[in-house]
Amino acid sequence: MTAVGSKCRTCRQPAIIDLPRHNAHFCAEHLLELCRRQVARAIEQFDMLDRGDRILVAVSGGKDSLAVWDLLAELGYTADGLYVGLGIGDYSDVSATHARAFAAERGWTLIEVDLRDRYGYDIPTAAAATRKVPCSSCGTSKRHIFDEAAMNGGYDVLVTGHNLDDEAAVLFGNTLRWDVEYLARQWPVLSARLGFPKKVKPLVRLTERETAAWCIVRGIDYLVDECPMAAGNKHLAYKAALNAIEEASPGSKANFYLNFIDNMAPVLVGRAIAEGSSIGVCSNCGAPTTGSLCAFCHLVETAAAHERVRVEMVVTKRRSRR
Amino acid sequence: MTAVGSKCRTCRQPAIIDLPRHNAHFCAEHLLELCRRQVARAIEQFDMLDRGDRILVAVSGGKDSLAVWDLLAELGYTADGLYVGLGIGDYSDVSATHARAFAAERGWTLIEVDLRDRYGYDIPTAAAATRKVPCSSCGTSKRHIFDEAAMNGGYDVLVTGHNLDDEAAVLFGNTLRWDVEYLARQWPVLSARLGFPKKVKPLVRLTERETAAWCIVRGIDYLVDECPMAAGNKHLAYKAALNAIEEASPGSKANFYLNFIDNMAPVLVGRAIAEGSSIGVCSNCGAPTTGSLCAFCHLVETAAAHERVRVEMVVTKRRSRR
Repeated sequence: MTAVGSKCRTCRQPAIIDLPRHNAHFCAEHLLELCRRQVARAIEQFDMLDRGDRILVAVSGGKDSLAVWDLLAELGYTADGLYVGLGIGDYSDVSATHARAFAAERGWTLIEVDLRDRYGYDIPTAAAATRKVPCSSCGTSKRHIFDEAAMNGGYDVLVTGHNLDDEAAVLFGNTLRWDVEYLARQWPVLSARLGFPKKVKPLVRLTERETAAWCIVRGIDYLVDECPMAAGNKHLAYKAALNAIEEASPGSKANFYLNFIDNMAPVLVGRAIAEGSSIGVCSNCGAPTTGSLCAFCHLVETAAAHERVRVEMVVTKRRSRR
Repeated sequence: MTAVGSKCRTCRQPAIIDLPRHNAHFCAEHLLELCRRQVARAIEQFDMLDRGDRILVAVSGGKDSLAVWDLLAELGYTADGLYVGLGIGDYSDVSATHARAFAAERGWTLIEVDLRDRYGYDIPTAAAATRKVPCSSCGTSKRHIFDEAAMNGGYDVLVTGHNLDDEAAVLFGNTLRWDVEYLARQWPVLSARLGFPKKVKPLVRLTERETAAWCIVRGIDYLVDECPMAAGNKHLAYKAALNAIEEASPGSKANFYLNFIDNMAPVLVGRAIAEGSSIGVCSNCGAPTTGSLCAFCHLVETAAAHERVRVEMVVTKRRSRR
């Protein structure tokens, strides 16, 4: 990951990674220090966590969610994990294995919710039933299950592993459309509201490459593959566009996201749609919603009634359309 | 520029161009109509021109400046042209030929200012003398000469040929840095202020490809080459990034710029630095400035004292650095 002979910025020992946005190389020890420092800084800057908070981490088995769980422990926070079985063929099977092994090795609690066992559908079937991109029903499912588990479990805060690349890509999409209400909502902390837990993203100051390096140095065995159903989605196209800019001008991606937070987010305060304003409760599950049935219960109704669809069918069909 | 057999959206005759952002093909006649309509719409939407205004067009000899001059005439506006000789070797010689021929064929007035004749320097020399990117001294030179010619000539408004691609690229750069003051200034009209003319950009609703097509259909012979000194600048990198996004999702580029104007610019009103607030006059030329000597007179002092540098030397040196 770095040129032979390059030295750590901090200790001048042989470096293992080159981070062009910091214009420096780092050895394993000082890479870990940098990651801890950036996460501690995000937690403090955005008032994400209090000592003694009951914390639930959304865990996928990928690098980001395992890194954030590990980093929280390093910084002295105790947290439980929540894994949602999405039923995306081998991808889900392998991701579950990684999440379980990580938790078991450390003796940490991992709560599991399986979509098909609990609700009678999986993501490939939901994608076919709703005729929307798979990421749409996946997002709706995970958001609902995360919220419900955090509220029912008495957790103070839900942690997700969104990193700087994720947040920059979402910001990029909202900026391309100049969707002011969505831009105004883009902040690494969402306060608790009636029926919703507080949600925080401690990795917003770390890139994808940095969280991957954290896992490698720490010996964390994570699922490397991207979700096969995400191929071709706009989020990945936005990441690619930002990576091309970053390549030409290192630091651009971090500046794009962090300058937004510093310079623009304050200008947009009060312009987000107040989601809690005229909210009712879902007639089926009691979750907050603007309709009579929440989006998740609506999805369950549609997807659970549909004949089971294998992931390979959805992926092949989507590929042939491109 | 379009698939064989495709038909014009308006008249169903054979098309000559495919415009994916409009999801349509056009014949020559209805492409011209579209261009006229978009320019008329920009002029009206942003209150750019009044009938009877004395108009000066900044003319480079490229497609955009010749197209805007031609389009203004088509829409019933009379305008003079202003050509600045930048001394960029063959590139400048050929651009002058195109500008002069265009004006002469129509019997229109073209004012010429040559940097070396009038001020004793050229852009390659200025780039070497200031040790900055050539686009920097070029911008300073053109801005000053445009402003001065418009004010001294008694013109009501200065027109430039900036198109949608240009404006989107500048917006993209300002957005990547979230430079709120620059973002707040991004508007296709700049009002007249003490010592500065009103400046307008009637092509902001037309892409580069559309202004090129205008010239081709109208038989306008323009300089096709990009400036040899601009190679590798950030503006071109931003254009490339936007073009990659446009390719994947036609209409994204126009939405990015036009949604900014509609959705975000109103949010930013009043956040631009008030340039005219504490302004004095240049002790040398009398132009408005914040210092004692304006940026242009400072540049003239530096560049005119420097030994003459040929464009080939600057381009070769810059290329070897990349």
